[in-house]
Amino acid sequence: MQGKSPVLLVCEHASNHIPSRYNRLGLTDKAVQSHIAWDPGALDVAQHLVKMLDAALVAQKISRLVYDCNRPPSSPDAMRAISEIYRIPGNENLTAADIQARIDTVYTPFRTTLGQTIEQRITDGFDPVIVTIHSFTPEYNGKPRDVEIGILHDVDSRLADKMLGLADQKYNIQRNAPYGPDDGVTHTLLDQAVSRGLKNVMIEIRNDLLETLQGRHDVVIWLAELISSAIISEKEVA
Amino acid sequence: MQGKSPVLLVCEHASNHIPSRYNRLGLTDKAVQSHIAWDPGALDVAQHLVKMLDAALVAQKISRLVYDCNRPPSSPDAMRAISEIYRIPGNENLTAADIQARIDTVYTPFRTTLGQTIEQRITDGFDPVIVTIHSFTPEYNGKPRDVEIGILHDVDSRLADKMLGLADQKYNIQRNAPYGPDDGVTHTLLDQAVSRGLKNVMIEIRNDLLETLQGRHDVVIWLAELISSAIISEKEVA
Repeated sequence: MQGKSPVLLVCEHASNHIPSRYNRLGLTDKAVQSHIAWDPGALDVAQHLVKMLDAALVAQKISRLVYDCNRPPSSPDAMRAISEIYRIPGNENLTAADIQARIDTVYTPFRTTLGQTIEQRITDGFDPVIVTIHSFTPEYNGKPRDVEIGILHDVDSRLADKMLGLADQKYNIQRNAPYGPDDGVTHTLLDQAVSRGLKNVMIEIRNDLLETLQGRHDVVIWLAELISSAIISEKEVA
Repeated sequence: MQGKSPVLLVCEHASNHIPSRYNRLGLTDKAVQSHIAWDPGALDVAQHLVKMLDAALVAQKISRLVYDCNRPPSSPDAMRAISEIYRIPGNENLTAADIQARIDTVYTPFRTTLGQTIEQRITDGFDPVIVTIHSFTPEYNGKPRDVEIGILHDVDSRLADKMLGLADQKYNIQRNAPYGPDDGVTHTLLDQAVSRGLKNVMIEIRNDLLETLQGRHDVVIWLAELISSAIISEKEVA
């Protein structure tokens, strides 16, 4: 079992891989490379955090355009037919069988693997801390975003509060930005962590910070320090 | 500090007391005695459970018609102007100052007391288990209800699942009935327990079961046994 720290990292949007049977969902290569298909840089950050924090990691290897694993099957965003300025032809007019196949082959295996990993770590004596790693685009629908790193939470804000309290001003840090629980982005947190009473947080990193090696390095060092400090601080309080 | 077990009972609708300055909210005595003003029998059940489980208890001493402490200030149900078949004249046309006064004198003190009690018990080494006790009317808007005891939960169903798995068939037990999280009744659970990662459940008892001493006795014995078993079972799993 990887990871001697309680931190379990999750990367739902790690990859832009679209299995060949989906014919790129009718998209251009440019669209498949873009942030609509994945969170560029997020997996790399997560993998470096694995090493720095001695953490475990569960990452999805299929594009969120096939199925967005941070959404339940009931969400209209689970298999979007439109994302920002892009039409996604391969997600239009899906049959019930198409939808069920995506749930069965993408969402359910990911959810099961993540749930089993958490349960195994509890069995192994850990009190898991769930940290999901995401990236977001500097502009959305043409509007620039000031926030550089978002610290997101749903009803259980224990870890997010601690991180926001400890964070220095190196980056523009904001609570529940550029999205928040009302946007439906806390599904993994609720479904996997809050449901089990586990401390949790979702980290959103503006992806222009991750474009250079130096930029990624800086973000990873900063995040590793902040997550460690918040967890130690949590332990002292408990 | 009362209570050597981890169980902290909560009774938001314990009392039908309306402070005299509210002039009974314009209601008849009959309405103030009815279930719209409180959960008849719930406090008595909670007080007996305190003894049987060696639990702590936080109960609201003011009617939910003045302020329903199982609702946040943002909820339209926090100070209802209509409840089932009753108009509540004293809740019509409230000014912003009226609303704020009720929040400040009823909701906030209750929420603060409950939160501080939980924090103190955590400081004292407990891992609190939050159990809220409610009762409901056998008929609602003329329609009879089959469910006798509801086991309610929001996103963290750990304790509810355990109780539902262990419960015998003495009563008609149902999950999230006659209400559920979509009806906004899990505010206390979310705000006080789920936010802290604490196991929690809301118990709804059909109030005709509580009309006789024998009926209350039977329900209390049954609930005490079920709650204890579920908590012990939870410990074994952990």
